[in-house]
Amino acid sequence: MIERIAILGTGLLGASAGLALRAAGFRGSIVGWNRGAEGAQTALAAGAVDSIATDPLQAARESQVVLLCMPIYATLDFMEKLAPLLGPEHLVTDVGSTKAQISAAAARLFNTPERAAFLPGHPMAGKERGGAALGDADLFRGAVWLFTDDPDCKRSPHSAELVKGWREWVVAIGSRTLDLDPARHDELVAWVSHLPQFVATALSALLQEEVGDAPELKDVGGRGLREMTRLGASPYSMWRDIAYTNTEAVAMALQKLEQRLAHLRENLRTPELRDEFEQANRFRRE
Amino acid sequence: MIERIAILGTGLLGASAGLALRAAGFRGSIVGWNRGAEGAQTALAAGAVDSIATDPLQAARESQVVLLCMPIYATLDFMEKLAPLLGPEHLVTDVGSTKAQISAAAARLFNTPERAAFLPGHPMAGKERGGAALGDADLFRGAVWLFTDDPDCKRSPHSAELVKGWREWVVAIGSRTLDLDPARHDELVAWVSHLPQFVATALSALLQEEVGDAPELKDVGGRGLREMTRLGASPYSMWRDIAYTNTEAVAMALQKLEQRLAHLRENLRTPELRDEFEQANRFRRE
Repeated sequence: MIERIAILGTGLLGASAGLALRAAGFRGSIVGWNRGAEGAQTALAAGAVDSIATDPLQAARESQVVLLCMPIYATLDFMEKLAPLLGPEHLVTDVGSTKAQISAAAARLFNTPERAAFLPGHPMAGKERGGAALGDADLFRGAVWLFTDDPDCKRSPHSAELVKGWREWVVAIGSRTLDLDPARHDELVAWVSHLPQFVATALSALLQEEVGDAPELKDVGGRGLREMTRLGASPYSMWRDIAYTNTEAVAMALQKLEQRLAHLRENLRTPELRDEFEQANRFRRE
Repeated sequence: MIERIAILGTGLLGASAGLALRAAGFRGSIVGWNRGAEGAQTALAAGAVDSIATDPLQAARESQVVLLCMPIYATLDFMEKLAPLLGPEHLVTDVGSTKAQISAAAARLFNTPERAAFLPGHPMAGKERGGAALGDADLFRGAVWLFTDDPDCKRSPHSAELVKGWREWVVAIGSRTLDLDPARHDELVAWVSHLPQFVATALSALLQEEVGDAPELKDVGGRGLREMTRLGASPYSMWRDIAYTNTEAVAMALQKLEQRLAHLRENLRTPELRDEFEQANRFRRE
């Protein structure tokens, strides 16, 4: 039923989605567009898309499914531009890391019987570096793909079919879907995704300051250090929008971790330290 | 020259050392002892040791090299017991994670022409769970094995030869050796090893409290979350001694990270966030 997909933004996620759809047997056409021409060429060369569009809006109009793979504010911009151009024969979906603002925009701009459907999505997959060159058909395998759809929206039957069809492709490329309320989504990812990222960033920045002038000493840390700082390579360009659109939940999570670290620091020589280790052990055991 | 090695403590590190020595071509005998009989049997069954000693002190007396693979306070206890029993025909070495107290005990108890040599060592390798069953001949491959030997100690020529011989085996099992002053060692590992561990513990304990009642939500976090909390499985039994013997350096590192996290939290919507990401990026790039 879905015969033409436009991937707007052929970075890591966009290119990986194209490769994964192909690997899962998608036989329709995939047109790609990217803000930078080089990323689009890389995606084309890798086989993630069949062709490159010069006009993303026209590419969207000519496709049934439009997958927005760009930072959050760029996604919101495109939602504004696409809404008046598309109708119920289209589905727009995205991969943005926070969902409250995108879901609100979807309710305002899409999902009526006369408008295109918008399905807010968020695959919990990525790498610490971006770009089409790292595109990977297996990126979404075993990952959870979150949706924050509004169950009460009044779509046309055709739109509803497109939503169902896209959800099936997400499963076909190896992801497990999970539906959450947008506010709950943003609170949850603040804990399990944004907090780990900002901790890795702060830890890496601190270590750069403390031991960065002696590069040979970085080798002293083993696998643990490498893992705890891998996300330190993540780019500001992507995380800026996340920090802006989930500020409150991230700030609360950071503050609670600061308190927890202070508690641990004050108890390095008391039995409280045992309780902290046992609580941490439970997280990994259950 | 080294024909008999006693491994006292056949947990993860002890068993791995035995397996690694065998894999690297050590043809002499390896006797093992473990506080718990089960761990010794597991190491024997895995081929990490050839025989099990019932008396660790006698096993030490009958060996040229005694490798202490136990927590720090247990290492210090054994140093006290072994010093009067051994002479310059012996080398004692260890794998303890902090070195100031062990190096001080070595200077007090060993390393004279009449006494055994003691070479304080610390392989930067491990797993988040211990035990002989996880023993791995490749555990030390590519790792840095730190030594905090006193270059001015007055050893017998035979003792000096044993030290040289053991250092060669450490290289033979795939490690790169690096010599540090004991105080510098403890300061450095506070940054690159102890801080990452305590951060993983605090983060895991906090997440257990915040999302631990919904185990399916842990799956939502991807590779990043798994990596950032893997060390959360580490046992208190090992880290207690580290917290006790490196309290000051660990507390300072933790406090600096708390400040860094607070700074990041207060700048989630300012250009300062870019600076933090760029500083973190540098740590991973250089």
